[in-house]
Amino acid sequence: MEVIQSLQNSKVKEWVRLHNKKDRDQKKQFLIEGEHLLEEALRAGCVETIITDEDCPETGVPVIRVTEGIMKKISGNVSAVHVIGVCRMREPELRNNSRLLILDGLQDPGNVGTLIRTAVSFGFDGVYLSPDSCDLYNEKTIRSTQGALFYIPVIRTGLSDLVTRLQKEGVTVIASALDASVNMEDIAPCEKMAFVVGHEGRGVSKEIQRKADQRLRIEMDGFESLNAAVAGGIMMYRYRKSSK
Amino acid sequence: MEVIQSLQNSKVKEWVRLHNKKDRDQKKQFLIEGEHLLEEALRAGCVETIITDEDCPETGVPVIRVTEGIMKKISGNVSAVHVIGVCRMREPELRNNSRLLILDGLQDPGNVGTLIRTAVSFGFDGVYLSPDSCDLYNEKTIRSTQGALFYIPVIRTGLSDLVTRLQKEGVTVIASALDASVNMEDIAPCEKMAFVVGHEGRGVSKEIQRKADQRLRIEMDGFESLNAAVAGGIMMYRYRKSSK
Repeated sequence: MEVIQSLQNSKVKEWVRLHNKKDRDQKKQFLIEGEHLLEEALRAGCVETIITDEDCPETGVPVIRVTEGIMKKISGNVSAVHVIGVCRMREPELRNNSRLLILDGLQDPGNVGTLIRTAVSFGFDGVYLSPDSCDLYNEKTIRSTQGALFYIPVIRTGLSDLVTRLQKEGVTVIASALDASVNMEDIAPCEKMAFVVGHEGRGVSKEIQRKADQRLRIEMDGFESLNAAVAGGIMMYRYRKSSK
Repeated sequence: MEVIQSLQNSKVKEWVRLHNKKDRDQKKQFLIEGEHLLEEALRAGCVETIITDEDCPETGVPVIRVTEGIMKKISGNVSAVHVIGVCRMREPELRNNSRLLILDGLQDPGNVGTLIRTAVSFGFDGVYLSPDSCDLYNEKTIRSTQGALFYIPVIRTGLSDLVTRLQKEGVTVIASALDASVNMEDIAPCEKMAFVVGHEGRGVSKEIQRKADQRLRIEMDGFESLNAAVAGGIMMYRYRKSSK
């Protein structure tokens, strides 16, 4: 087993740099922290190296033993982490388009991660992220997915062309909007649907609202304000895969 | 207008101490940050003092002008805040018990704040927090409510006695649980309902699950994992006040 004890080691420096989106995109690598995420990543077969300061069961993946100080330096977490996985990004592969989630400009990594986790729970086939949404491989996003990112293709792409393409494929595109005139209860589930959840403050962009086949309002009783992940969760539950 | 320029001023020190729960509870005061929350707090009539490093419109509430350095010291926020309100806690007063939310051991301030915000949006009458849930007046909780905490009574109390009392009042108490055998679709809305959302890892405590009138399962298609605020949001939408 390889052992690294110096904070100045070039590998340590490379791993620390994976906290920057630019370096992640260039290396096609990202970090995951903690046992639960490591298990999910191992099951998905995308772990290249396991970094740890403890004994660690044999998994077939190379292990590098480091000091507590190095773990602290690599980890993005405030509480102590004892295992970190260096993972390889994979080309997401969409196999089905019957239920899709589209995130338009979401800024909060916790919201993005939670929405991906919810999408998997309700049998969705894929998630699209607009170019101005926060990064999938941000450590907070990954933590909020609770590992769900390994179970669903997540694709970053421009939304205008995407919506046009989906509509040609027979997918009904539905944008949530506070001022929409059609209530969610009045839109029945159909074969192929995509749901757009918008920016935490501005909501879904005007262009995508115009292009969408339907604008949907989640019925409320007052205050007229929902967190983006909650609004997305309510829609995905209503139109979950088994609702068809 | 009073002006404070010294970081050593005793009022500044008192305000900073309001970041600790113990000091908040003792003084019956808490801080809110930013214009949106200040507006909501002013509307609710609970602001005692406005602290600012900018010009500020007349509201009838005493204003204290401070330096940028003092604002930074008082604020719990990383980005610059230009207005802070010192608010007085009030005795929550429950007027109705037709829709209640009960939070059992929730640890994440973002989840608690989001659940309170969602409760207001779906016309709920009140929120109960178990003694081991995180504090309502934590700055992250307040921020996540988006001001909804001023629109709904939030009561911290032991849940076992609460559930007994609610049941005597004719309220049906429903606990969400992943392993429950009754699906949400099969539980119809009724006149008086209370919904228990549990700890992010452990879920609803065994005791409250036993005492509840129903254990409810949110139907899922895989992964079997929902964020607490999303699960609560889906339940509150389904049983929102206007669903009766």
